[in-house]
Amino acid sequence: MNSDLIQNTAGRLVPKYINGEEHIPFQGVGKYRPKGRKAAPPIASCADYPEDGNKVAADLKTALKKCGIKDGMTISTHHHFRNGDLVANQIFDAAAELGVKDLRWFPSASFPCHAPNIKHLDSGVIHHIEGSMNGPLGDYCSSGKMRGTAVLRSHGGRYQAVQDGEVHIDIAVIAAPTADPFGNATGDRGPSACGLLGFALADSQYADRVIIVTDNLIPFPCLPWQIHGNYVDYVVVMGKIGEPAKIVSGTTEITKSPDRLLIAEYAAKFVAEAGIMRDGFSFQAGAGGTSLSFAIFLADMMKGKGIKARYLRGGSTQYLVKMLEEGLTDYILDGQTFDLEGVRSMRENINHVNTSPFTSYNYHGKGNFASIVDVVVLGATEVDVNFNANVVTHSDGRLLHGIGGWQNCLLSKCTILPIPCFRDRIPVIVEKVTTLCGPGELIDVVVSERGIAINPLRQDLIDKMKGSSLPIVNIRDLKAEVEDLCGGPPAPPKTGDKIVAAIKWVDGTVIDCVKSVE
Amino acid sequence: MNSDLIQNTAGRLVPKYINGEEHIPFQGVGKYRPKGRKAAPPIASCADYPEDGNKVAADLKTALKKCGIKDGMTISTHHHFRNGDLVANQIFDAAAELGVKDLRWFPSASFPCHAPNIKHLDSGVIHHIEGSMNGPLGDYCSSGKMRGTAVLRSHGGRYQAVQDGEVHIDIAVIAAPTADPFGNATGDRGPSACGLLGFALADSQYADRVIIVTDNLIPFPCLPWQIHGNYVDYVVVMGKIGEPAKIVSGTTEITKSPDRLLIAEYAAKFVAEAGIMRDGFSFQAGAGGTSLSFAIFLADMMKGKGIKARYLRGGSTQYLVKMLEEGLTDYILDGQTFDLEGVRSMRENINHVNTSPFTSYNYHGKGNFASIVDVVVLGATEVDVNFNANVVTHSDGRLLHGIGGWQNCLLSKCTILPIPCFRDRIPVIVEKVTTLCGPGELIDVVVSERGIAINPLRQDLIDKMKGSSLPIVNIRDLKAEVEDLCGGPPAPPKTGDKIVAAIKWVDGTVIDCVKSVE
Repeated sequence: MNSDLIQNTAGRLVPKYINGEEHIPFQGVGKYRPKGRKAAPPIASCADYPEDGNKVAADLKTALKKCGIKDGMTISTHHHFRNGDLVANQIFDAAAELGVKDLRWFPSASFPCHAPNIKHLDSGVIHHIEGSMNGPLGDYCSSGKMRGTAVLRSHGGRYQAVQDGEVHIDIAVIAAPTADPFGNATGDRGPSACGLLGFALADSQYADRVIIVTDNLIPFPCLPWQIHGNYVDYVVVMGKIGEPAKIVSGTTEITKSPDRLLIAEYAAKFVAEAGIMRDGFSFQAGAGGTSLSFAIFLADMMKGKGIKARYLRGGSTQYLVKMLEEGLTDYILDGQTFDLEGVRSMRENINHVNTSPFTSYNYHGKGNFASIVDVVVLGATEVDVNFNANVVTHSDGRLLHGIGGWQNCLLSKCTILPIPCFRDRIPVIVEKVTTLCGPGELIDVVVSERGIAINPLRQDLIDKMKGSSLPIVNIRDLKAEVEDLCGGPPAPPKTGDKIVAAIKWVDGTVIDCVKSVE
Repeated sequence: MNSDLIQNTAGRLVPKYINGEEHIPFQGVGKYRPKGRKAAPPIASCADYPEDGNKVAADLKTALKKCGIKDGMTISTHHHFRNGDLVANQIFDAAAELGVKDLRWFPSASFPCHAPNIKHLDSGVIHHIEGSMNGPLGDYCSSGKMRGTAVLRSHGGRYQAVQDGEVHIDIAVIAAPTADPFGNATGDRGPSACGLLGFALADSQYADRVIIVTDNLIPFPCLPWQIHGNYVDYVVVMGKIGEPAKIVSGTTEITKSPDRLLIAEYAAKFVAEAGIMRDGFSFQAGAGGTSLSFAIFLADMMKGKGIKARYLRGGSTQYLVKMLEEGLTDYILDGQTFDLEGVRSMRENINHVNTSPFTSYNYHGKGNFASIVDVVVLGATEVDVNFNANVVTHSDGRLLHGIGGWQNCLLSKCTILPIPCFRDRIPVIVEKVTTLCGPGELIDVVVSERGIAINPLRQDLIDKMKGSSLPIVNIRDLKAEVEDLCGGPPAPPKTGDKIVAAIKWVDGTVIDCVKSVE
């Protein structure tokens, strides 16, 4: 296997072939230029679809059969229900009953609720997963038990891969909280409302076959049609597709840790002092507790100075919704509702706008929204002295997190990582990240409870912070201080030889890979 | 030339080659099955677009140059401004200044305001027009002066042709009443608001290069983003892009003719008596005076019987808006605003929904909305005893009208043509239509001031109308009566040998052609 490894521009050894297909190694930020043309789905004809627009099939198994499910196909799902999804497991249960093998599961992300699919990985129904694996499935993958190699992509990278024909979806199964018999579908209403369906946009546009699964069928037209029925082959009605209460996972709760509150406050003050917080600005803060606290601090400072944002990027939470309703921003441009207030607001407030990885993150578009955002605040599992960052593995090498929109957001005008210096007495600021997910040149500021390190590439920010009362530090000094406290750097991960996952950059090139953990 | 003619299933002689490319003759409704895959635009990269999202170019000529305009290219425009468009002429003026020749102009429709482009047809800047030609350009084409052959398509057929790669657009120029520097654009607001931009959707999705032209540039984000900036290359700002008052053309005024009012009343009563007007039903009425009067009669009957529609299909007018605001329908699904009340309503009322030829009309999708509509009421220049109809030529052979959504709407559950028996003492009900645009099997009812003829294929409708007080007649009897009144059938058109236009069916096949008029 190692003879197939090639060193990319970031100095990482990555596989040239993944699951038998050739992939391009990372060539540097903005360096790789795609060739060729977008994927071209088959031309359909209305003559092959019911004139009355009624595409309802008896059940999921029937719909999968009608779509011609067979060995080796790629089946996609979305994760707007996060840990409350009730559909994905049923797909593979049905596939197992139909005797189908070697499927590639292509979720936009998987969660602990999908752990039952481990039996389908063991039995051979699922060959491998390409998509973020949060929790048990990531652990399973890390252990080296999955037959194929996982491929982790950002939200934008997933759209790019489908658009560019790198991943061909045979059958997309889209869980939709409300739909009509024609297949128009929305996530913002119905008993299982989850907000939006943007992660399934590429799937609807490019898959050969598209199945909508809903527990709330209404007469045509279902509005807003977040997914267009004109892309849909079959509609399946079932009792319950998701548990909206479980959209709120552990990552969307505000922090109570004094250290993290301090980090959030530092980050907010940095944004203000650096002159980023001004009328008409924009920001994106992730769903982690520190990021949420950052947004709350910033909102207070905006109120104090009478500043209004032009837009906030979601994942939305009650805190962002409150800012919209208090007039602190014109819009929320939202890619994913992280709590039920987000869902409600998106349904009721025309200025809470649903976006998709196409509009927000696709690097192989004619621009995207991510690079226009003034400042983003993101988490990381590790950051190194060259500002490179990791979001998928822990320093023990275990693959436990997805990339989400993280890589895409790095293209913003200012990227801030507010992170603690250590977790469980293991340093987070390291010499070299275990897995490279984000090149250091795109990470501008690391904010920790022990000081704020500015990337030397951002002399403009360094200049702006001269004379600040905030604790500006050198990242190497910060690392040394943390190692003193923790008794040295993290132990190197105990990895095997098997490559269990490849990490894609936003342009589809391979930036790093993950090895099995012993 | 005639050796290249081939007889299609409808018995019409049509060219096998149009402008040097092979086309498929009409094979019957729902008979032709497309092969192959959709058109695949080049893959772009954010690395080639400004990071700050600002795509503003100095002026239209600069943008066209940056898009690499050259001889023989295809340039597209939309017609949401109808006769008030101020952009299309400037494109070809700029092309002339740049010395470019032999362009194919691919408008969704052209209007009398575009007559200045005749000089560019004469000089060779424009090779030919593919798209509806209302008025002077149609007359020019009819005269045989255009070098290439016009190709007329329905709104859905235009989307289909672009989607299927039959027409490759090199540069799309999209006039947008409001836009942001990234290229997100909307038609529903701004000083030149024209409602929506649905006709330009295919252009934005499939053209190699896309230019947004606006007279109202606002800070990112422009919402709603009817056109996604992610498809856009350049944004051009100019003083004034359109005259919204001229959206209201002669076709969107209510009729005062007693005969036409009688026809409209008959049509409305037919819809009621046939049981089509019931709770949750849907209808589409065109913008002609008779169709508008039909809608008004129907609205009165709905109110009288306490009936509410699920949706009305636009082109919207003040009359449809009133129905929405009075609670006579849940939604207007609108493809084109025909007056300024339509524009206002679309901007202000979330239940006045913008649609596109993709959702509504594209026959090469997985179904479309047109076939779900319960009843449509459409105009025609001629109808024959086999219920075939013509909308593009007059019986003198002159090509003066476009197809619009007319062909697409024929797929509805019930198609009614409310037409006068004669115009200017020339019979409208004829033995054989001059130009075949709609196959008789799709036209269910012809309503005239002298009686209602039901297509014998619709025995169900014939049965429902037994015992009706409405004057149900045989179409041949009607024709005979009209010929008696007018002194015989219309004189045959005096046509030359040159084929000046091909008429496409909704599936891209050639249903008929139009010859030059002497």
